[in-house]
Amino acid sequence: MEKPDLTEKKIRGSLVYDGNLLKLHRDEVLLPGGKKTAREWIDHPGAAAVIPVLPGNRVVLVRQFRYPVGRETLEIPAGKLDPGESPEECAKRETAEETGFHINSLQSIGAFLTTAGFTDEIIHLFYTADLQPCRPGREGPANADEDEHLSVVIHPLTEVLQMIDEGLIMDAKTIIAFLRAQRKGLL
Amino acid sequence: MEKPDLTEKKIRGSLVYDGNLLKLHRDEVLLPGGKKTAREWIDHPGAAAVIPVLPGNRVVLVRQFRYPVGRETLEIPAGKLDPGESPEECAKRETAEETGFHINSLQSIGAFLTTAGFTDEIIHLFYTADLQPCRPGREGPANADEDEHLSVVIHPLTEVLQMIDEGLIMDAKTIIAFLRAQRKGLL
Repeated sequence: MEKPDLTEKKIRGSLVYDGNLLKLHRDEVLLPGGKKTAREWIDHPGAAAVIPVLPGNRVVLVRQFRYPVGRETLEIPAGKLDPGESPEECAKRETAEETGFHINSLQSIGAFLTTAGFTDEIIHLFYTADLQPCRPGREGPANADEDEHLSVVIHPLTEVLQMIDEGLIMDAKTIIAFLRAQRKGLL
Repeated sequence: MEKPDLTEKKIRGSLVYDGNLLKLHRDEVLLPGGKKTAREWIDHPGAAAVIPVLPGNRVVLVRQFRYPVGRETLEIPAGKLDPGESPEECAKRETAEETGFHINSLQSIGAFLTTAGFTDEIIHLFYTADLQPCRPGREGPANADEDEHLSVVIHPLTEVLQMIDEGLIMDAKTIIAFLRAQRKGLL
């Protein structure tokens, strides 16, 4: 099979928008054939997400209003990596903050690129059935980001898989995490 | 189950970066509790992608350098919707442009949100086994976008599923399309 070199080389770059959340770059690049073009892309620190499974095959999910799509989505707990933070640490921290559950141990179920055409965002996925309430009897968002409003919901695993098959769960990381975990025999 | 209203309302918005590829908005929004915050998001026209299966369970994929992640990825044919174009039309057009295969008919396997925290991008997924070369004997990128350099590769389906399980295929739309098609009994 032929393997042409498709590499694009950066000539120069600039940060054209430096927002609170989004860092947008515009780089001038050299294409394989020698032509030049511009590439616009969003610089992302990476993220981690985890499927938290309680006894009885019940899954802890978060319902959240996602402003860009103008509606609520049902997702597994997740968030961006803090500087210097490992994906495992991030998954544990976000789960505690968003759901009030403390994860003792977790296992990796891979990583994926959300939309490589315009961002370097990578999401590291985990699975755990080894968790307990941070403050028993008081599950729920403990310390979510100040402008993050969440609702914790617990669904039977079978219902979650059905919502994925029926297109009711549309979030990429949630779909990929469940289908991967299932193929690995974890669910 | 309690259902708190998590809706965020737009107060005013502005297009803070109007690029060739990326349109970045910064909106002032009202949070459920009455506080205000800013939401930065990328306006995306939506996209379509398709699993094209040839006789003998061989799959047509594209290898492409993805500048934001600095490396090549293996993906199903896909692209952004043109104004007024339906997802089906887009999937057919992109497959012809990127791979040189003409799709006669296709079937929907759902849609998903790539990363709803910062973009409204939705990708519509399709499956087809009803296709033929546009110009027999001359398969390959026919009319890809001017600055899009692609390499068409054909893999046995079993190999593709293995690359997904092993994390060698990391592209969200490609992973979701294959795992969904498999759950629907198409693969």
